[in-house]
Amino acid sequence: MMEPRLSLVTLGVSDIARSKAFYEALGFKTAFENDKIVFLPMGGMVLALFGKKDLDGDMARENAGHGHIALAHNTRTEAEVDAIIDHAVASGGSLLKAAHKAGWGGYSGYFADPDGHAWEVAYNPYWTIDAEGRINMGL
Amino acid sequence: MMEPRLSLVTLGVSDIARSKAFYEALGFKTAFENDKIVFLPMGGMVLALFGKKDLDGDMARENAGHGHIALAHNTRTEAEVDAIIDHAVASGGSLLKAAHKAGWGGYSGYFADPDGHAWEVAYNPYWTIDAEGRINMGL
Repeated sequence: MMEPRLSLVTLGVSDIARSKAFYEALGFKTAFENDKIVFLPMGGMVLALFGKKDLDGDMARENAGHGHIALAHNTRTEAEVDAIIDHAVASGGSLLKAAHKAGWGGYSGYFADPDGHAWEVAYNPYWTIDAEGRINMGL
Repeated sequence: MMEPRLSLVTLGVSDIARSKAFYEALGFKTAFENDKIVFLPMGGMVLALFGKKDLDGDMARENAGHGHIALAHNTRTEAEVDAIIDHAVASGGSLLKAAHKAGWGGYSGYFADPDGHAWEVAYNPYWTIDAEGRINMGL
């Protein structure tokens, strides 16, 4: 059995320096880097930026440019959603979907990073984010 | 600016019941579900299972089946790596890459979930996982 937790998310990117600059502009900080990989901590987990071909080789398969997966960053206020998406687009990202009132009762939009990786930015009035930035669903 | 943290990872899946059964077999627990979405907590974050077409619509774009992205689960011992990959394959996943000594000094392999989403399972002798399952890179 596997403990239900995630340690890293590794994004395959075409230009590591460009991606590092983008994520640092968003507010991430680099904890480790060499000419192959960059690690940016995110609350007990790590965001890794790794060359697309290196990642393909590492996971032993060819990959499409982007897939059926979205990363999400939940905010503490609705206003933060627009501010973060605007800032991401100004920092080299692209707008996938402008923030709007979502059918589930929150406020949400999407940007893509320079390689097309999708991030949802959302305010969920039903979920509490603790001081450490964590969501507790009671399990 | 965005706090450097991740709230959810949403996987677009073709059969929510199949994916829920797969992740529960791996050791995840369902905290919330309706006919559209399932939430499985993972240490202050959430793994969401959502229909592929619903996710495409939500992020306002068409997506490929899988992309240049890998989720990773780091273990506390090398032996856990093989056990988790074997268990994932026995539970309906597929082997992408058998565990092996990696060039960076650890021990790592990859499985894919029923929709092809890639998970690396790795033991990294240089990183400590705390009692809560978190990695601290000192930032």
